[in-house]
Amino acid sequence: MLLYDSAVSGNCYKVRLLFAHLGVRYERREVDVVDRSNRLELLGELNPGLRVPTLVLDDGRPLAESNAILVYFAEGTAYLPVDRYERAQVLQWLFFEQYSHEPNIAVMRFWCAFAGGPPAGADVDGKRRGGYAALDALERHLGPHMFCVGEAFTIADIALYAYTHVADQGGFELSRYPAIGAWLARVAAQPGHVPITA
Amino acid sequence: MLLYDSAVSGNCYKVRLLFAHLGVRYERREVDVVDRSNRLELLGELNPGLRVPTLVLDDGRPLAESNAILVYFAEGTAYLPVDRYERAQVLQWLFFEQYSHEPNIAVMRFWCAFAGGPPAGADVDGKRRGGYAALDALERHLGPHMFCVGEAFTIADIALYAYTHVADQGGFELSRYPAIGAWLARVAAQPGHVPITA
Repeated sequence: MLLYDSAVSGNCYKVRLLFAHLGVRYERREVDVVDRSNRLELLGELNPGLRVPTLVLDDGRPLAESNAILVYFAEGTAYLPVDRYERAQVLQWLFFEQYSHEPNIAVMRFWCAFAGGPPAGADVDGKRRGGYAALDALERHLGPHMFCVGEAFTIADIALYAYTHVADQGGFELSRYPAIGAWLARVAAQPGHVPITA
Repeated sequence: MLLYDSAVSGNCYKVRLLFAHLGVRYERREVDVVDRSNRLELLGELNPGLRVPTLVLDDGRPLAESNAILVYFAEGTAYLPVDRYERAQVLQWLFFEQYSHEPNIAVMRFWCAFAGGPPAGADVDGKRRGGYAALDALERHLGPHMFCVGEAFTIADIALYAYTHVADQGGFELSRYPAIGAWLARVAAQPGHVPITA
C-alpha cells in the first residue's frame, strides 16, 4: 500500500499509529502541506477532498479521510468494538474530532508551527475558543473514563490523541486538563505505540 | 426515541430523512439554534459536542453526531452497503461532509438565513471559498456517477443532500453545477423522500 503522507500532519499520524499497532506494512510518499498548488494533479483522481492522508490499497483502489481509513483497518480488530452501540460511540467521537476538535486545534497548530502565522482574515479568536471548547468536552468525558469508549483503547483514542498531544504547539495550555493529561499518558503507554515523529 | 431536533438544521434533517425512509417512529423536541445558552444544561449529559441532532434511544442511551446516527440506523439496511470498501467510501463521504462541506455551506447558510449575518471576526471569504471547493469536489465526483457510492442511494447521499440542496440560502450558486443538480433531483425522487420542512 502507498500512503500519501505528511510527517507533521496529525491526520496522517493517526493512520501511521494504527498501522504500527496492527503491524501493517506500507510505503510513504511525503506531500507538502504548506504549498498545496499541486494537490489536484497529485490527488485529484484519488481523493475528492485533496487532503492527506490518502491511501492507495494494494489493489490500486484509493481511500481517503483519516477517520474512514481508521475504521476500514480497525474492522475486525480490538481497536473497533463489536457491540453496535459502542461502534456508534466510536463514530460519534470520530465525527466530533473532525468537526469540533481538528478544525480548531490542528489549524491553530498549523498556523503557529508550520505556516508562519494565520492567513489574512483568519478567525484566530474563534479557533482558540473552539479548540478550548473541544478540550473542555474531552476533559468532561475523560474525567470518569479511562478511554473514550467502553473503557478500552480504540481508534477513537487514536484519532483524538493525534492533535491533542501536540495542542501546545497551537498555543493551547494542556496543563489545565488533568483528565486529558492522564489519558494521553495511557495512550502513549499502549504496547506498539509510536510517536508522531516516527 | 427522542430526537433533540431543529426544524431548520440540515444535520437534524439528515436523521429525519433516514427515519422517513426506514419508517422509524420517534418524538421531536425543538432546540434553539440561535440562542445556545442552555446547551450545557440541556445536552451536557447526552452529547459532549452539545449539538443537535442528539438522539435518546428507547433504552435511554444517548447517541450524537448526525453522521454517526445515520450509520447506526442504516446498518443492515439498503442505505449502507455490505461491501467493506463501499462502506469505507460511505464513511469517506460522511467525513468529507462534516469537514469540508458543512462547516462552510451550512455555516454560511446559518449566518445569511437565520443569524442576521456573520459574527464579528468571521472569515466569510474563507467560508465562501471552502464551500465552493466542496461543491467543486462533489461536482467532479458526480459527473460520471449516479450517487456518491456504488451507483446506489446511501446515507452518503442523505448526508450531502441535507445542506447542498439549500446551499443557495448561504449565497452559493448551484446553477453552476449541473451534475449536482441532476443528483439533487435523483435524491428527491427516491420513494419515501420528505422535504426539510417536513
